[in-house]
Amino acid sequence: MSKLRCHISISADGFVAGPSQSEQNPLGEGGERLHDWAVSLAAWREAHDQQGGEVNESGPIMEETLENVGAGVMGRNMFGPAGGGDWGDEQWKGWWGDDPPYHYDVFILTHYPREPVVMEGGTTYHFVTDGIERALEQAKESADGQDVMLWGGAQVIQQYLAAGLLDEIELHIAPVLLGDGARLFDNLGGAEIELEQVRAVEAPGVTHVKYRVR
Amino acid sequence: MSKLRCHISISADGFVAGPSQSEQNPLGEGGERLHDWAVSLAAWREAHDQQGGEVNESGPIMEETLENVGAGVMGRNMFGPAGGGDWGDEQWKGWWGDDPPYHYDVFILTHYPREPVVMEGGTTYHFVTDGIERALEQAKESADGQDVMLWGGAQVIQQYLAAGLLDEIELHIAPVLLGDGARLFDNLGGAEIELEQVRAVEAPGVTHVKYRVR
Repeated sequence: MSKLRCHISISADGFVAGPSQSEQNPLGEGGERLHDWAVSLAAWREAHDQQGGEVNESGPIMEETLENVGAGVMGRNMFGPAGGGDWGDEQWKGWWGDDPPYHYDVFILTHYPREPVVMEGGTTYHFVTDGIERALEQAKESADGQDVMLWGGAQVIQQYLAAGLLDEIELHIAPVLLGDGARLFDNLGGAEIELEQVRAVEAPGVTHVKYRVR
Repeated sequence: MSKLRCHISISADGFVAGPSQSEQNPLGEGGERLHDWAVSLAAWREAHDQQGGEVNESGPIMEETLENVGAGVMGRNMFGPAGGGDWGDEQWKGWWGDDPPYHYDVFILTHYPREPVVMEGGTTYHFVTDGIERALEQAKESADGQDVMLWGGAQVIQQYLAAGLLDEIELHIAPVLLGDGARLFDNLGGAEIELEQVRAVEAPGVTHVKYRVR
């Protein structure tokens, strides 16, 4: 059965981005340190059409996040700079260039309608204005039996968690204290969310912990 | 060289106790779930003079927390019910019975002076009213070259972290979301604290991650 999965890098104190996110600094102050473990990996570099990189225990974890995924969902504040209003001249096409590393339909939650944007390599950005359930429905339809990846950011993950719609979450816990920023597990409004630890993997500079969500 | 070490069970959302801590419910609402992984262990039961228990990857972790420790430090709100004032009739002697599982000097941070309390089995409770540095000094002197264990709770750990006095912290990350309570990494006042991941161990129902603090 098609699952809604999520994996995200997080600081030891629970933040998935630092304070003061902006177009110049999309992960906020210090936030890029959350991804130090990832960007040096051969698996990451291959997915981003680069050569070389390190091979360690994080490689198979990273590769697994790409397997059996047929569509994606993300929030407006991940697709573009935080706090954006309407789409203006519609020039913004995400942070990931002309050939984004998704290669499937990505459904972007927004309050502002916009026509789909077809990118190179099989990625199409769709803009969904009628809520998280509808975005998930559309993504599952597009995924055609494969899983849907919930890319973030924190607010969108919180909404899916609180609504009981997330099936699996893997935390890449970085040895970093950010002190402030976007806290992942917040605004859950007392929702009864049960986690079951599926596995934990030690790797250089990061610990990967996967939970089933019930 | 003698280190100040800390190990503590923590929820996936960063709490080391639930909300509404009290004498009846010292770990707060839901907080006892943070220790499910521990109390069933043979290593834990042995340290608490009980028989039997499970043997798994958590056993050696638990045993290691007992090794080379010559003294302890804890806060008033861990030694007794949260929010306690002066010591009253001095009948309170901790949560751990006549023969506490420490078997060394434990230095308790408090605003209220009290004579030391000698317990069975080598544990003596000392009450320190002149601050965290002085408590650590006394504990190191008592430990005589062995390490000092910082037992908690959250506020005291935060104080030692912010002051740059903690050398090592191991998190036992439980697959639990508490939503509210005592957050471990909080009130650090912008202190520059660097973590280095020493190791991570997967075990049933918990992930153990140890950091060196710099």
